[in-house]
Amino acid sequence: MTGTLLAADAAERDAADPLAGFRDRFQLRDGLIYLDGNSLGALPKATADRLARVIAQEWGEGLITSWLGALWSTAPRRIGDKIARLLGAASGEIIATDSTSVNIFKALTAALSLRPGRAKLLSEATNFPTDVYMMQGIEAFSGGRVRAVTADPDAVLDALDDEVAVLLLTQVHYKSGRVRDMAQVTRKAHDAGALVIWDLSHSAGAIPVDLGGANADFAIGCGYKFLNGGPGAPAYLFAAARHQAATPVLSGWFGHARPFSFEEDYDPAPGIERFLCGTPPVLGLAALEAGVDLLLEADMGELRRKSLALGDLFMERMEPLCARYGFALASERDPARRGSQVAYAHPRGYEIVQALKELDVIADFRTPDVLRFGLTPLYLRYRDIVETVERLERVCATEAWAKPEYQERAAVT
Amino acid sequence: MTGTLLAADAAERDAADPLAGFRDRFQLRDGLIYLDGNSLGALPKATADRLARVIAQEWGEGLITSWLGALWSTAPRRIGDKIARLLGAASGEIIATDSTSVNIFKALTAALSLRPGRAKLLSEATNFPTDVYMMQGIEAFSGGRVRAVTADPDAVLDALDDEVAVLLLTQVHYKSGRVRDMAQVTRKAHDAGALVIWDLSHSAGAIPVDLGGANADFAIGCGYKFLNGGPGAPAYLFAAARHQAATPVLSGWFGHARPFSFEEDYDPAPGIERFLCGTPPVLGLAALEAGVDLLLEADMGELRRKSLALGDLFMERMEPLCARYGFALASERDPARRGSQVAYAHPRGYEIVQALKELDVIADFRTPDVLRFGLTPLYLRYRDIVETVERLERVCATEAWAKPEYQERAAVT
Repeated sequence: MTGTLLAADAAERDAADPLAGFRDRFQLRDGLIYLDGNSLGALPKATADRLARVIAQEWGEGLITSWLGALWSTAPRRIGDKIARLLGAASGEIIATDSTSVNIFKALTAALSLRPGRAKLLSEATNFPTDVYMMQGIEAFSGGRVRAVTADPDAVLDALDDEVAVLLLTQVHYKSGRVRDMAQVTRKAHDAGALVIWDLSHSAGAIPVDLGGANADFAIGCGYKFLNGGPGAPAYLFAAARHQAATPVLSGWFGHARPFSFEEDYDPAPGIERFLCGTPPVLGLAALEAGVDLLLEADMGELRRKSLALGDLFMERMEPLCARYGFALASERDPARRGSQVAYAHPRGYEIVQALKELDVIADFRTPDVLRFGLTPLYLRYRDIVETVERLERVCATEAWAKPEYQERAAVT
Repeated sequence: MTGTLLAADAAERDAADPLAGFRDRFQLRDGLIYLDGNSLGALPKATADRLARVIAQEWGEGLITSWLGALWSTAPRRIGDKIARLLGAASGEIIATDSTSVNIFKALTAALSLRPGRAKLLSEATNFPTDVYMMQGIEAFSGGRVRAVTADPDAVLDALDDEVAVLLLTQVHYKSGRVRDMAQVTRKAHDAGALVIWDLSHSAGAIPVDLGGANADFAIGCGYKFLNGGPGAPAYLFAAARHQAATPVLSGWFGHARPFSFEEDYDPAPGIERFLCGTPPVLGLAALEAGVDLLLEADMGELRRKSLALGDLFMERMEPLCARYGFALASERDPARRGSQVAYAHPRGYEIVQALKELDVIADFRTPDVLRFGLTPLYLRYRDIVETVERLERVCATEAWAKPEYQERAAVT
């Protein structure tokens, strides 16, 4: 098929796309193709206005009274409840605050406290590093009481012995995009007497999630990817209602049952609020809320359908490049096991990602050799996929990647 | 002296005030007297513009490339270095990130690791609650290895026995404003073999601090008080260069020596960056930086002189009210021991603070009976102090505090 025909076909699919209207709700420069929404989501236009209001009116005019008057105090819970609607959780089971890493620590220690006598924290090798690092920090501090272990990704369920207190897994793998069956894994872990913490950083807003249906224990996730909450956005933590008597180690004053009584002893709040710690990050929360509000306007089923269709189109268009230039699919083909991204391995992966940037395509490189293309159905068009592969072909045909300055490696998730 | 004469006198002092020009750099509504800058600092006018730029340009246009292109990655260290100039620390000894509470946890566990064989975390009763709560969380998690203890404020140095690993004290007490002698206390703690963590939440930007001169070990503090960093602003952590081999338990990926190598094992960054944990909160950091930048324009000696002068004037004007209406000074009179606030105890303290609000004076109530008046020399005028006491007198003379709705207690630091 020629480029023109392809473009016409893509334009037709864009015209029929029920989600097409959402693209205009984001600030996206003409010409730019942004395939890194799973590192940092694009800016919703409403966010700038909302932040300007929070700053000038709520902070500038309301000052300290805005903690109650502008509902800053309850923002972590209110936004958590909104995220809960995306993730199949109940009201009062999610709180938005702190970073993903800090929330992993809270979830790990809370889950540990519910499994006395069990010493192992289990994850998979190749998990996103911070998940395992946080486990290792707990091991180091525990003085031998806790062990952090990882197993081969395909064998992690076989490693569920009677010493495992907590299994920490990412539902959608950050590099391959492989999706874990949350209900099945949770059931197996429960059968082995362990609790599960799900890292939903690449799931929330990208694929349908049903925490309640999966009988999930704990979950954490990131606000700045598919939730479009902004750089370093507050993260969130899910604790099933049945686990909310667990006490997180990070017992800061905002997790107290009566923070403004200034009592001498820590007495955790009865519900999900005990997973708060310090004073909530109001500006970051406001941006996160704007991102979540926008996502809640879309139908998750439609998002998933389009995400898969974008991926199918991407893989179809890539086939000649795989044959000609040596790209190898590094993500799942099976829709049931595929997140909202496609990835290819290529020995020149890093340089190619750099060269694509010069053609106004932003993708992501992940060591050692993976080009990662995030597919954000809220603001990507079918024509963007066709155009991306055309520009990629140009990079390869002209060897535009062979520049000395691309040898210097630097990347940011 | 009559009101008019007083007002003329205050106007004269305002006219001679070398810091007078700073008031116009803040958004402050005419008529409002804001005496709660030690709960939430006022909004610097530059902050709104800076945030708008970070959102529209750095996030909206630069997207993921801004982590390097707009220097987001190094913001925690860059802002830490700026705060270091306010606090007498060296470059590379302070990092800005996370909440005060989370940073307390990092400092406590890092200090503990430097004192093996010692089990006690010591603080003073009446310390700001989150400090002690974080100690209690560590105790609960430690399985008996660590004990969190508090001593009477006047006897805390006597409690430094050979089991104390860490002494955690707030330099300027949140309620009384009492200032601790940092150098002397640190020396005594070192003599007893303990390390000290200073909570500088009510010190930074309020009184001169010399962490280096005091041979301080660790410190943490809050970004949203006198630093004017905005609601829930990122906090900061100081670790003296000699202690930066200590490993904080919160071993997130941003504290890794090579975060973007995605290695399997945690290997802490060599310097202060190891006290980072998750992805830095970019929006909050941008607002914090604007606040700190403004403060760095002022001379700390001038700020301190004016702060004390405002306090002296406040106490002088309050004397008739103490005699007539039963206010009792609840903060230090001695300038050497007084922070940037004055406080009065009164049995109707809560109701009076509410009634003052209706006269456009925002002060703070702290249990059980303390009216706390924060003195922010950057934006307060002498005339504001005179006017505050006049409005307070009106509240008392008319018993404006005696409203049923004021009985319902609610307050936010």
